[in-house]
Amino acid sequence: MPANKQLLLDNRPEGEAKASNFKLVTADTPALKDGEVLVKHHFLSLDPYMRGRMNDAKSYAQPQPLGQVMQGGTVGEVVESRNAKYAVGDKVVGFGGWQQYSVVAADQPGALRKVDTTHVPLSHYLGAVGMPGVTAWYGLVKIIEAKQGQTIVVSAASGAVGSALGALAKARGCRAVGIAGGPDKCRYVTEELGFDACIDYKQHKDAGSLSKAIKEACPNGIDGYFENVGGMVMDAVLLRMNAHGRIALCGMIAGYDGQPIPMAYPQLLLTNRLLIQGFIVSEHMEVWPEALKELGMLVGSGKLKPRESVAQGLEAAPDAFLGMLKGKNFGKQLVKLV
Amino acid sequence: MPANKQLLLDNRPEGEAKASNFKLVTADTPALKDGEVLVKHHFLSLDPYMRGRMNDAKSYAQPQPLGQVMQGGTVGEVVESRNAKYAVGDKVVGFGGWQQYSVVAADQPGALRKVDTTHVPLSHYLGAVGMPGVTAWYGLVKIIEAKQGQTIVVSAASGAVGSALGALAKARGCRAVGIAGGPDKCRYVTEELGFDACIDYKQHKDAGSLSKAIKEACPNGIDGYFENVGGMVMDAVLLRMNAHGRIALCGMIAGYDGQPIPMAYPQLLLTNRLLIQGFIVSEHMEVWPEALKELGMLVGSGKLKPRESVAQGLEAAPDAFLGMLKGKNFGKQLVKLV
Repeated sequence: MPANKQLLLDNRPEGEAKASNFKLVTADTPALKDGEVLVKHHFLSLDPYMRGRMNDAKSYAQPQPLGQVMQGGTVGEVVESRNAKYAVGDKVVGFGGWQQYSVVAADQPGALRKVDTTHVPLSHYLGAVGMPGVTAWYGLVKIIEAKQGQTIVVSAASGAVGSALGALAKARGCRAVGIAGGPDKCRYVTEELGFDACIDYKQHKDAGSLSKAIKEACPNGIDGYFENVGGMVMDAVLLRMNAHGRIALCGMIAGYDGQPIPMAYPQLLLTNRLLIQGFIVSEHMEVWPEALKELGMLVGSGKLKPRESVAQGLEAAPDAFLGMLKGKNFGKQLVKLV
Repeated sequence: MPANKQLLLDNRPEGEAKASNFKLVTADTPALKDGEVLVKHHFLSLDPYMRGRMNDAKSYAQPQPLGQVMQGGTVGEVVESRNAKYAVGDKVVGFGGWQQYSVVAADQPGALRKVDTTHVPLSHYLGAVGMPGVTAWYGLVKIIEAKQGQTIVVSAASGAVGSALGALAKARGCRAVGIAGGPDKCRYVTEELGFDACIDYKQHKDAGSLSKAIKEACPNGIDGYFENVGGMVMDAVLLRMNAHGRIALCGMIAGYDGQPIPMAYPQLLLTNRLLIQGFIVSEHMEVWPEALKELGMLVGSGKLKPRESVAQGLEAAPDAFLGMLKGKNFGKQLVKLV
């Protein structure tokens, strides 16, 4: 069996997460039992939600256990199989964690899924045609309930979730407006992703200033908002929401290190009769097939051009992850292992 | 035609509302046109939402115009009629405003409704079997979607909306927990209204302390919350919401004079996948018949015993209104005019 490099969560962050929270080890891969397959990971997915799981706090997911392999989505290929449904060479998406190989009991529901790389590159199954894409789909379709002609805003618009959100909103005849950090990301959002406008939040010191820029980009107000960030950005958007607007609350990365991110004017939820709903896509597995089908077609037809930041080698994962939390990535953050 | 004493909004509050914002005048009642009736008001309704309309700010309702009769719900009797559907002596509920008489174009949808005072006293049509009761019904049934065995919390529990909410929650087999100000109100909430517990928020200086008391009263956490208050109370409740909890946002009286009432931990909406929705019951007229039917039966059967604070005479309305905003009322605040 091949040696397997792994990254464990060694200790929990106090405030900002650091590279020293992780520990690199090498383990043997155990012999396969009946029904299991050995997957060689080609890419690891790095996602903002992982920061939350590093804390020992009540949240939607159990905390990441200390001393164990960091959990996370992976794509790769089957290199050994004791399961009749999987052959060596099959390309698969799973939840193998921050390591080179994983042993998977492939018959467990949701553990492994074969994918077709004819029209969609393997890595995209961790992004636009994977969990982040379905996250965007669920928020837009099931919470925001986007309708033709509406104005839909998304924060972190150049990221894996945000870029999918834009394509899905445009496909529904909406005006899609992004919020992103810096001119390069904003240019990508409008020129390559096809958003109607993008606002660089880094040009604004407070919610009032950002809110004015949002007003210019959204002359008819905002009907739906997909939130990945929280804090000042959320305050600014709330000031521009139309009556009966709907907000899908997916992430609040501005507060993941424990910074206070109070909502300044919750009264706006009342006076504008807004709906806001937090969600996690893994609780809604019933929508995945429909969502993945639409996302696959958007990518296959070139209407969604996902961008990727790819770090090389397992050892690079911690720094890539920490950089992503600060917005240093551009598009979906991956780690390439082969 | 009788002389008609009226209270006008004379000027808008800066910060706290004051009696000097209102002006008492006497006007003639005009001669009736075809289709109109003259209603002599027996009771005016005083409601927290009126404070919001005194401001010249974007909100769910148009601001109350300056120099015009304060708008508000009324019950009374028809004393003159040029409408075949209404006879002198009919008891009616309408939106006649802060004055002794109103001339009503009775065929306009929603302008006037005949009521039966056999089992329900006329004044209750401004409270438990009126707008406040339907408000509670809408929030509990349509937003919270209360189910048997759940724990439902309401702030301002002794008020017109809160008391109805408790009876409606108990009728659905829920645990009903109130939050109110002072031992007398809390005793009324548990002993007369039948709530399972009531917490006196005045015994707590901050959200953390209040949250501990809520934990004791809600050993299984909170599934649904009906919010009338905002601020510290809302922060404390949010800390105790269960996953997938639902919050009906009806009022935020803590901020009606312009005080900042930030939501301290909006992250809880995400980590617990909460839903929060602001609403105003007048946008949901379709539920009124069903809601009023249930509320009438609860009052008629003695399962809902609404309490009223009754001020005497139109001149007493401003002070009664301002007192209500500070929680000096006990139950539904009315002004008796006859």
